[in-house]
Amino acid sequence: MSGAMMARRLILASGSAARRQMLANAGLVFDVVPADIDEDAVRDVMMEAAPHQQIAVVLAETKALSAAAAHSGAIVVGSDQILSTGERILSKPGSREGARETLRMLRGRTHWLHSAVAVAVDDDLVWRTVETATLTMRDVRDEEIERYLDAAGQSIFGCVGAYQIEGAGIRFFERVVGDHFTIMGMPLLPLLGQLRRMDGVPA
Amino acid sequence: MSGAMMARRLILASGSAARRQMLANAGLVFDVVPADIDEDAVRDVMMEAAPHQQIAVVLAETKALSAAAAHSGAIVVGSDQILSTGERILSKPGSREGARETLRMLRGRTHWLHSAVAVAVDDDLVWRTVETATLTMRDVRDEEIERYLDAAGQSIFGCVGAYQIEGAGIRFFERVVGDHFTIMGMPLLPLLGQLRRMDGVPA
Repeated sequence: MSGAMMARRLILASGSAARRQMLANAGLVFDVVPADIDEDAVRDVMMEAAPHQQIAVVLAETKALSAAAAHSGAIVVGSDQILSTGERILSKPGSREGARETLRMLRGRTHWLHSAVAVAVDDDLVWRTVETATLTMRDVRDEEIERYLDAAGQSIFGCVGAYQIEGAGIRFFERVVGDHFTIMGMPLLPLLGQLRRMDGVPA
Repeated sequence: MSGAMMARRLILASGSAARRQMLANAGLVFDVVPADIDEDAVRDVMMEAAPHQQIAVVLAETKALSAAAAHSGAIVVGSDQILSTGERILSKPGSREGARETLRMLRGRTHWLHSAVAVAVDDDLVWRTVETATLTMRDVRDEEIERYLDAAGQSIFGCVGAYQIEGAGIRFFERVVGDHFTIMGMPLLPLLGQLRRMDGVPA
């Protein structure tokens, strides 16, 4: 009997297209069940009280537990990413004005992406980890920002930093240090290791 | 007059789909002119004589100069990637047997990807850089390798390490340290910086 047939049911408790794509590219078979939690509320409550990296962990854990409670016996993956400027956490810009403001705030300085992933089964939090990437944006001119917003369109309004680093947004950066998957929103390699230990990935 | 209109002609002297995709994703406008050099011959000659990282640099420079000679005034980008086990350099496997042999050699150990990029204009080598990524494969079982080869098909025969890390090949790895673009074959961020200094990228 092959490992593929023995694999347990796997659920990704995230509506993020990037995370879904990551797991699918790695050849995993899974269902998507976005967790029903008010992320913004959790973030707002915790923003002053906890290190920004820890907020990503708590949100990943909350998403995993929330979906695991509804899907008995399944291996449930929750994940979250926080963009921190050091002083504060950024939210999705939501509009062209918001995107402009975000990019003007981030240019010429370093910010951090904290990506956390947690695994839950029923009401047990089995495992979690968090990784951080460090990104330095060059001092982009106003005209470059406007041209980027012209070209990117509404797709950028749902991106926390108002850039898509996998596209033309890479041109804003002078230095990017960190794991690719962490930058894209979920530390994939440690997650795959954990899933292998749980028979959650056919191998 | 916009920066986009002032940008100089840009040529990528590489037939690699991954490199073409990288520049296109970043929003650059360029032509592809694969350099006509015998890479395997250069590699074989240099393999014993030079550090493996330097072989990638020389090949990137040679590709850039070769295409620049034929396209006067253009900014020409050459690039090369070398997979080194420390002792030796691997070539494309070319067949299922070769791919199996490669993966069996790489499993349970660390190997290095050296990615170099060079810029030439006419007969001037203007700039070059090289970056290295460190990849550690877990001790993958024979059956996993066979299943991977079944699923990957012929597409893997042209990949130097016999894995596609952007796909299911990621599951072979326990540790990947290095820049995403370096792993994919060309250190993009330093290249973009150099092209900006040369008006080779609209910004």
